[in-house]
This record gives sequence, C-alpha cells and structure tokens, in this order.
Amino acid sequence: MLQLPESVTIKEVGPRDGLQNETNKIATEDKVAWIDQLSDTGLSYIEISSFVHPKWIPQLADAKEVAQAIKRNPGITYAALVPNVKGLERAIETEIDEVSIFMSSSETHNKKNINKTIEETFPVLQEVVDGAKQAGKTVRGYVSTVFGCPYDGHVPVEQVLRVCDRLFEMGIDELSLGDTTGVADPKQVDAVLNKMKQNFSFDQITMHFHNTRGMALANVLVSLQHGITTFDGALGGLGGCPYAKGASGNLATDDLVHMLHQMGVETGIHQDKLHESAAFIQRKLGKELPSHQMQVMNRSS
Amino acid sequence: MLQLPESVTIKEVGPRDGLQNETNKIATEDKVAWIDQLSDTGLSYIEISSFVHPKWIPQLADAKEVAQAIKRNPGITYAALVPNVKGLERAIETEIDEVSIFMSSSETHNKKNINKTIEETFPVLQEVVDGAKQAGKTVRGYVSTVFGCPYDGHVPVEQVLRVCDRLFEMGIDELSLGDTTGVADPKQVDAVLNKMKQNFSFDQITMHFHNTRGMALANVLVSLQHGITTFDGALGGLGGCPYAKGASGNLATDDLVHMLHQMGVETGIHQDKLHESAAFIQRKLGKELPSHQMQVMNRSS
Repeated sequence: MLQLPESVTIKEVGPRDGLQNETNKIATEDKVAWIDQLSDTGLSYIEISSFVHPKWIPQLADAKEVAQAIKRNPGITYAALVPNVKGLERAIETEIDEVSIFMSSSETHNKKNINKTIEETFPVLQEVVDGAKQAGKTVRGYVSTVFGCPYDGHVPVEQVLRVCDRLFEMGIDELSLGDTTGVADPKQVDAVLNKMKQNFSFDQITMHFHNTRGMALANVLVSLQHGITTFDGALGGLGGCPYAKGASGNLATDDLVHMLHQMGVETGIHQDKLHESAAFIQRKLGKELPSHQMQVMNRSS
Repeated sequence: MLQLPESVTIKEVGPRDGLQNETNKIATEDKVAWIDQLSDTGLSYIEISSFVHPKWIPQLADAKEVAQAIKRNPGITYAALVPNVKGLERAIETEIDEVSIFMSSSETHNKKNINKTIEETFPVLQEVVDGAKQAGKTVRGYVSTVFGCPYDGHVPVEQVLRVCDRLFEMGIDELSLGDTTGVADPKQVDAVLNKMKQNFSFDQITMHFHNTRGMALANVLVSLQHGITTFDGALGGLGGCPYAKGASGNLATDDLVHMLHQMGVETGIHQDKLHESAAFIQRKLGKELPSHQMQVMNRSS
C-alpha cells in the first residue's frame, strides 16, 4: 500500500516565482489584493515578491510597496527573495518574516543568473544570511537546477550536496530543491532523495517542482514516499517556463492541493477560496492559467 | 528504491479515442497517412478507428476506408472498436487484427453511452466476442468509469470487478481499465489494483488514464509499482475531455514515452518519429495539441 503522510505544508511562491516570469503587467494594488486573498485560503506561507534590482526583474519592482500594503495574517509566514545585502536592507524595512536566498547547483546557470561562479556566490549569501539572522529573520535557501541544467545538462548529485551543505553551514533554516526547468523524473527524484537523506533531515527540505514535462505530480508522489512533507507551488501554474515560453511552469498549487485532498492528505487549504483567488489573478493577467484545475473550471463555466 | 519494469508496452488509441472527441474534421487520407506514420514509430499496437454507427460518431464514419487503406506492418496489431455484431461484420471485412468491445462499470454512464443497462449489455457483447473469436480475432475489453462516474460519482470496486469478471468469462483476451473522466488519484489506483490482483493476472490488464486533473503520470507510476506493464495513450494528448471541452484528455503517449525513457524503461518507440507524427496530426487538426512534449516543442521551434 502507498504510504502517505497525514498532512503536507504547501508554500505559495506564485506572487514571486509566478509573476516574475509573466510578461503581462500586474498593478501593485492587484498584487496586494491577490496576496490578501491568498492569506485567507488557509495557506501558512506566501512568498510575496523579490528584492532583486528592478533592472533584472521589472515585474517585481514594487516589492517594497507590496510588502508594506498587504494585510498581515499572524498565522502566515510572509517571505521575499533577496539577492544581496542591498536587497536585504530594503526587505528588512518592510518587516518581512523570512528571507529567501538563491543560487544554482550548476556553474553555467549560476553564472548566467547571478553573474558569479558558485564559489564566488557563497560569501555574498553569507552576508545576507548573517544580516537576516541579526534582524531576527529566518532564512530559506533555494538551490536551482538540482535535477539538470539547461546549459550544463546533468548535474552530479555530489555537486548538489556540496552546495546544500554550504548553505546549511551558513545558517539557513530550510532548503528548497528546485527542478528549475522541469526535467526531473520520478526515478531521478528517488535517487537524489536517497542520497539527500544521508546528509539532511527531511523536515528541513522542500521540493520545488516545475511541470514542464508533466511529471511534477509523479515527482511529488515519490517525494511523499520518502517522507518529504513540504512542497512549493504557484497558484494556477503561474510562471510559465522561461526556457519554453507558454509551456507549463511551476507545479500548480491548485493541482497539488487537489491531488493531496483526493488522497486524504490534509493541507489546511480551502479549495474553493484557492480557486477564487486563482480566478482573480487569471482575470488580472488577462490570459488562461495552465493548471488542470483552472482548465477544467474555465471549460465548465 | 523505486521498482520499475525493464520495458512497457504502449497501445496507441489516438486515431480512435483521440479523434472521436475532436470536432475538427480530418480527411480520410490524412488519417491513413498519420496511421502509416505511427506504424513506423516502433509502436506495436494501434487502435485505428471505431465501427460504431456514424450517427453516433461521425468523426469516425470512414472506419472501413481507413482500415482498408493503411499499410499493414506485420509486427503491429491493428485494432478497432466494435459495439455490436453489425459493427463486427464491417470490421471483419477489413481484416482488422483485434476487436475492442466496451462498456461502463457505472449504470448511468453505460445507459447514456450504450442505451442499455449493464445487465442488458452483456449478451450484446457476448455475440461480438463469439463472432470475433470465430473469425480468429483477439478481443480487448474496455471498462469505463472504473475510478468514478460523471453521473453516479463513486463506483464501488466490487462493481468494477463484477463487470471485469463477466468480460473475462465471455472470452476477452485483455482488459483496459478506463479512468474515463480523469478523476483517479494515485491512492485510489493503488487501492483498486490491490483488489484487482486478487482476481486477475496483470499481464491481461492495461491501464487507460486521462490527464484531466494532471494526475495521469502519477497514476502510471503507482501502476508500474504494482507490476502493470501495459498502458493506453493518445499521441499529443488528443481527445480532450468530453466533460470539460478543451481540458486535457487522454494521457499523451509522447509524455508517457518521455517519462518512461527518462527512467530507463524501454518502450521500443522512437521518440523523434513519434514527435514528427504528433506534429503531422497537429497541423491537420489546425490546433495545438495539449501534451507537454508538444507544448515544449511548439514553444521552442
């Protein structure tokens, strides 16, 4: 029999990882209204924006305004991405709860994304972690291209482990393992998690899947078998895939919640409210969201 | 560690289960050209059409012409759906290799689809099986709504087993268990297969998933764990979902092959040729196919 956990935590990254890859502009007030709706769905974690320089991600240039305008639900952790101490300063001014740092496990993707080698990236992130900790914030570490790199191809699991080790040594509280371009298959997830469990406690590990090739929920299933109980999702499958415009991107929170609830796994999330907030951001984006739940809803209404 | 079989057989049902749900008309010569392409991909089984009365499925009114015009590859089983002895007579005239019969495991779906109760359906199918056997054909049985019915909701597994038992007693060679509206979740598949394996040998069972809610590949994964090694697929995810127009339909053969090959499971299928034949039928349909493989290809080209 399939062994499943009683409950799973879903971290909503749509306002950041979703919207940063959408070309249609969303007004600040609409982002705020959307995040306020998300705060009412039962989610316990929302990544609201990114304090990356607006030159790199103009879609999220209003990070500070968004962070200051949203209604804070005391039961929810509001997080934001931070690339360096400059970004951290701006984030801290908004009294964000958690700071996320990011890097890749493959050299070329890291270089193209951060303009530094992996080795050069660590001291920059250490500064951010130290500053965040001094300000009393928890820190999440994102590692990209864990299951493959669009430039380097195969990424050896030892290389991933080395990056993860360094991040935990820096003092991060949690790690999110990213299948950045949606190449992971269930067998690979099985193999990587078998290695991972020798080094890390799985209550500090989140899986971050993309559904580019349709395998995200199969990968979730294998992860659940390994005892992983935290997953990132972007509502409606927001975000696309930066390497194949228009193709499915982030694992859709609504599809994930649907599968988990069908299997009797609790998430604490109200599906109706979740779908309403997906319909809201779909209207604001002015295009159909790719999640299966939204496709079924759009066709049935 | 994830236990996987060395190889899997994929039965291509796109020309029948796919095209019967597409509203765009495909010319007979294009169907023939497409099936001839499919015959060159390494597939060992193709369901080419349906000998249902054209009044019910006008898209497949040219079943006989298609069956007579395609090039027969001796290594491939060419099958067609047959609802009754009238259809069987037409099918036998074309020298089709295998005949498929179909019914539902839920009363209301069976009634709406076949206009008979489940009990009234058996004698009709018995006639077809007997006639097919006399003509030296193998027979495949499709059972629909195994994991849920759009009208009756939950379908007790005992009811499914009763229908399957009767079909095997009739003399069918193989059973295809259909998740007709794509509601199955991995836990349910696990539970149903646990029951199934008490009554049937899994080398006579094919799983037929739809991806309406994005869980098809996760359901395949659970089935593989149970020792199932045959799956139905429709190339490009052809067919939509008759209950939610435009939403994903049949499990896409190309997405299934991709996942299996990534995991080192052999299918005997050439992916490049498969994608070429998907691109061909996509052009003829004049609309984008929903499979993830085709979405990635359409966006990358």
